[in-house]
Amino acid sequence: MPNELPAIYPLGIVGSGQIARMLHSAAVQLGITPRLMAEDSGDSAALAAPGASFRHPDALSSFAEVCEVVTFEHERVDLGLVRYLEEAGAVIRPGSTTLRAAMDKTHQRRILLNRAFNVPPFAELRGPDDMLDFAEMFGWPMVIKSVRSGGQADRGSWVVDNERDALRVMAEQVGRDLMIEAFQPIVKELVVLVARRPGGNARCYPVAETVNADGACREIRIPAAIGSRIATEAMETARRIAGELDAVGVIAVEFFLTTDGLVVNEIAARPHNAGHHTIENAPTSQFENHVRAILDFPLGPTHALAKACVTVNVIGGIETVDPAVHLAEALAVEGAHIHLYGKRPRPGRKLGHVTALGDDMDQARELARRAEGALMNRRPA
Amino acid sequence: MPNELPAIYPLGIVGSGQIARMLHSAAVQLGITPRLMAEDSGDSAALAAPGASFRHPDALSSFAEVCEVVTFEHERVDLGLVRYLEEAGAVIRPGSTTLRAAMDKTHQRRILLNRAFNVPPFAELRGPDDMLDFAEMFGWPMVIKSVRSGGQADRGSWVVDNERDALRVMAEQVGRDLMIEAFQPIVKELVVLVARRPGGNARCYPVAETVNADGACREIRIPAAIGSRIATEAMETARRIAGELDAVGVIAVEFFLTTDGLVVNEIAARPHNAGHHTIENAPTSQFENHVRAILDFPLGPTHALAKACVTVNVIGGIETVDPAVHLAEALAVEGAHIHLYGKRPRPGRKLGHVTALGDDMDQARELARRAEGALMNRRPA
Repeated sequence: MPNELPAIYPLGIVGSGQIARMLHSAAVQLGITPRLMAEDSGDSAALAAPGASFRHPDALSSFAEVCEVVTFEHERVDLGLVRYLEEAGAVIRPGSTTLRAAMDKTHQRRILLNRAFNVPPFAELRGPDDMLDFAEMFGWPMVIKSVRSGGQADRGSWVVDNERDALRVMAEQVGRDLMIEAFQPIVKELVVLVARRPGGNARCYPVAETVNADGACREIRIPAAIGSRIATEAMETARRIAGELDAVGVIAVEFFLTTDGLVVNEIAARPHNAGHHTIENAPTSQFENHVRAILDFPLGPTHALAKACVTVNVIGGIETVDPAVHLAEALAVEGAHIHLYGKRPRPGRKLGHVTALGDDMDQARELARRAEGALMNRRPA
Repeated sequence: MPNELPAIYPLGIVGSGQIARMLHSAAVQLGITPRLMAEDSGDSAALAAPGASFRHPDALSSFAEVCEVVTFEHERVDLGLVRYLEEAGAVIRPGSTTLRAAMDKTHQRRILLNRAFNVPPFAELRGPDDMLDFAEMFGWPMVIKSVRSGGQADRGSWVVDNERDALRVMAEQVGRDLMIEAFQPIVKELVVLVARRPGGNARCYPVAETVNADGACREIRIPAAIGSRIATEAMETARRIAGELDAVGVIAVEFFLTTDGLVVNEIAARPHNAGHHTIENAPTSQFENHVRAILDFPLGPTHALAKACVTVNVIGGIETVDPAVHLAEALAVEGAHIHLYGKRPRPGRKLGHVTALGDDMDQARELARRAEGALMNRRPA
């Protein structure tokens, strides 16, 4: 079936979620019909892409054979297989070097440390002794993290205040590779997206500020409420990291702004939730620039179009409210841009997002939150 | 297959071209997976829509059975079948009353004339006598038109200077229903898009100016270079026509601005080529507002975002240049928005469009034309 699709740029997207879905749309706008490898016909991405293959990610090799360029929406990748395919001539972007750094957080930290980027003190967590040694050096609280990136939706870090809590998290996460890092006095969390072509030509989007609650990102504000020196440092750092990792496509560099300045938190080698605002708030969305970058096409402009922009994530609540049922109420919020992903509601699951542009942040935020509240069937406060 | 798609708003789109393709994308963004009824898996729309049915338009009834709301991207509709399905309870938007007015230009003209809208003098053209009678009243040149709307791509009008030329066109178009209209002293051609919900709530997009050459629209400029009185008259007229036809969805009203003021040329009951700029140049695109309107959701804002906006159509040339091959060169034009439709190149065929926004028209126009020139592999002048 995929072989019948005419496509002079046979682009393959591996993924099932909203990132793959929005990448697909961006490619279609440019006249490209990507091939999608999802897992199930009900997947968010599969609902928007014709001729999708439904295979386990391990079936990558046959998919790569019919694509000129393959890209991933997530980090759940068999790295050995990716390397093997690269050696056999497949073009996978970002490639195995970048993917490895994105997937394995201790490896990522070591690279960043070796290249003299500011990262929080960290250590492997192979057992209680590592934890006790680390506590002796850096005190409590500390942060336990999963070494493997679980993709967009997964919770992967726990702040623990003492030995007992640390042991409990370790016990609960048995079977998972863990690491520890020193607790950071976080003032703000920031994200910089960089689109980078093979060869190094790169463009940064403006610094976004993310607001988290219950371990999930709830809200993204652009521009971040930071000064121009920190903004420049963040963008320069992100651009250098993209270069060090030889990234191709969009990568997202997450920072902590701490009371001791900027610290690199972690890196995602794909379009990022904090960049969905670029659909309305930039001349070129992160999805289009990812497609451009991996096909080695010129990148498009990345500046913000509005003075203020807020994206609010639509996250499944405890009660199974389906935001799609309340679409009409949300669309009544004048000027809010509603995006739903076609996913079945589940508590904690990202089901969509709302973006609003404005002349000031309060106004944009009020619009976006009102539309999100309508989708979640909450009464206005 | 369509039955397996979960969709709480089962929206059906009948069509194969770029209008259906862009409608599909707009619906997907809202979390809706439309069902597409195209004709071939290589169709522009089918390349972007999963689970499409490939059937002749006459197979509409089985398609309508699985959709809550059905819409068309073109006017090649069997009106009897649409009426039959409506009587059987299908929701078809726009409905048969509006579709009939859009499809049959003499019927459309009569409605407009009865409601006291300015239209050019016209008559049926059943044979040479009609033509001679009309020439006696209105002189030469006159315009011969096809009564049935052929959809977006088809040429349907011929300016003739004398009896011999008129007879030649009539002979060439044998088998087609024709009409005649008095030649209009056209100063500008204008288009107003109106999105209208069931019940009458409606919004207008700003007046667009279309620039034609060789019988095809080459360029669209927003705002039109007209004064505010004419702009208001055009928008009010378009809004009233939408009401008179009980239109639901987006309708496009094409005007001639003549040396004797505004005249209604014709009406299309669907998103229109002159509205593609709304993807970048309005808070809500014509495609999203069409989806909102036919599902009876609140309409989104329709104002222009940029001071000046130009869309240039990418039209297949005599030599079979495939614009997709030159995508990289076009993407290098900073700030141009490239849209390709995935269609095979053919002379005269609309293969895509380029939109550019700017602070003045010359700048926007230069950008859009440069990108279009790159796609068509023309050297810059």
